Amino acid sequence: MRLSTVKIAGRTTWGVVEDDRFLDAGAVLASRYADLKSAVAAGFAGVAEAAASAVATPLGDIEWLPVIPNPDKILCVGLNYEMHRQETGRAEVENPTIFARYANSQTGHLAPIVRPKVSTDLDFEGELAVIIGKSGRYIARDEAMRYVAGYACYNDGSVRDFQRHTHQFTPGKNFPDTGAFGPWMMTPDELGPLPDLRIQTRLNGTVVQDATFGQMIFDIARQIEYCSSFTRLEPGDVIVSGTPGGVGAKRQPPLWMKPGDVVEVEVDRLGVLSNPIVDELR
Amino acid sequence: MRLSTVKIAGRTTWGVVEDDRFLDAGAVLASRYADLKSAVAAGFAGVAEAAASAVATPLGDIEWLPVIPNPDKILCVGLNYEMHRQETGRAEVENPTIFARYANSQTGHLAPIVRPKVSTDLDFEGELAVIIGKSGRYIARDEAMRYVAGYACYNDGSVRDFQRHTHQFTPGKNFPDTGAFGPWMMTPDELGPLPDLRIQTRLNGTVVQDATFGQMIFDIARQIEYCSSFTRLEPGDVIVSGTPGGVGAKRQPPLWMKPGDVVEVEVDRLGVLSNPIVDELR
Repeated sequence: MRLSTVKIAGRTTWGVVEDDRFLDAGAVLASRYADLKSAVAAGFAGVAEAAASAVATPLGDIEWLPVIPNPDKILCVGLNYEMHRQETGRAEVENPTIFARYANSQTGHLAPIVRPKVSTDLDFEGELAVIIGKSGRYIARDEAMRYVAGYACYNDGSVRDFQRHTHQFTPGKNFPDTGAFGPWMMTPDELGPLPDLRIQTRLNGTVVQDATFGQMIFDIARQIEYCSSFTRLEPGDVIVSGTPGGVGAKRQPPLWMKPGDVVEVEVDRLGVLSNPIVDELR
Repeated sequence: MRLSTVKIAGRTTWGVVEDDRFLDAGAVLASRYADLKSAVAAGFAGVAEAAASAVATPLGDIEWLPVIPNPDKILCVGLNYEMHRQETGRAEVENPTIFARYANSQTGHLAPIVRPKVSTDLDFEGELAVIIGKSGRYIARDEAMRYVAGYACYNDGSVRDFQRHTHQFTPGKNFPDTGAFGPWMMTPDELGPLPDLRIQTRLNGTVVQDATFGQMIFDIARQIEYCSSFTRLEPGDVIVSGTPGGVGAKRQPPLWMKPGDVVEVEVDRLGVLSNPIVDELR
């Protein structure tokens, strides 16, 4: 099942994506679930049935919002592919590197990623987002995958000069409209095993990042185990699992995203997240 | 005016603290404000009038919750007093160091700070919390103080070994029941000018941190200016403004908080935040 949060004629709802149609399960289940996060927390109970009787809208007529616009937590994993670790010159570590995004930094599929007026160092980071399905603390590694509600494409858009103002990444990772999340989440049964799946980032059609999830330093189960050792994971929480090598900042000369560009993040079987780059209004 | 979020006989509400009584403005204004964050967003409109007619409860009969239990963002400032910067050996920087706390790591006045079963390196950090009153982006430094709804004591309890797993602080700053926030927020008109106010942290009655806000490297106005350059600040957002020198991790031998201890953060005129330390249930 593929699910997302969208706007239709100015109204925010969520539902199921089937072929080229959006099925407005949120309208059918409005008295039961306030949003997609609530449906995630309930294990999607009743959602397939609701979708079967829901109003259908062609995908061309919807506006995509971040899959989960309001996660309690967005936990981002840094330096999680060997090629990216090496290009950044960081030492090997025994635990995942974790930093935070706030929910108000997110944007949806086909919506612009915004280059802020205070920087030109806007970089791409294609990643796999993991949406947590149930509450858990101290989750054992071999139980961890049972806590996954689904997966989505994510572009962890980064403003590199702000990221490097100090040793903490937070400022560079939280500009409004830089964290693209979509078009939809796909449940694990539909996506299948992760290790052989390819993730690719393309800038104006040119491949700039290309890896398989088997190349992660810390796999998804280890990420869930580690994050749940220091915080209680909750339904709708998002773990953004790290970006492969090839980021624009480490190229000679650097390759920054600029207005008029189109950036895509594609994951095998999951789909393509596409965003135009625009300048912030001055 | 002093305001807080509390539980009375198992019911969560918010209201005004006057002398030794809690006035349940939240009950009077239930149809208007969902929580203290909503009242902050409205500039406390109608709150003083509601408090005048509200049910009063002796402070001894309430359970204190984090002042704002559900901020959209908690922005923590690191290394913001010269003595603390020096004791950590960090270089001088031109911008504030920012890391994030998630809301589910917070706890209230008199509630326990919990030492997790995975670490003994539990440290105190007495700080001034700034509660943002209105939405803003690119806030100029000389306008910044108009965005402050109030101030509170904060203990940015830190699990140092997890903080040092990698170069990103997030894991060590997000354990459940480590971010103590209370007892109340005080509006700026009542607290008065900050620079001469003293902040003191005491562990079992012994002073372990002692500074004035005039010793901050980046003052509150600069913190608001900087944070609003990379994110939109919203009502109820919390900026935790940094800790003075004297943290337990930098003592020889290290001074960790342990079960049975009591830690207090006192700010002149504002009040005392007190928390016992307990071990996590195993």
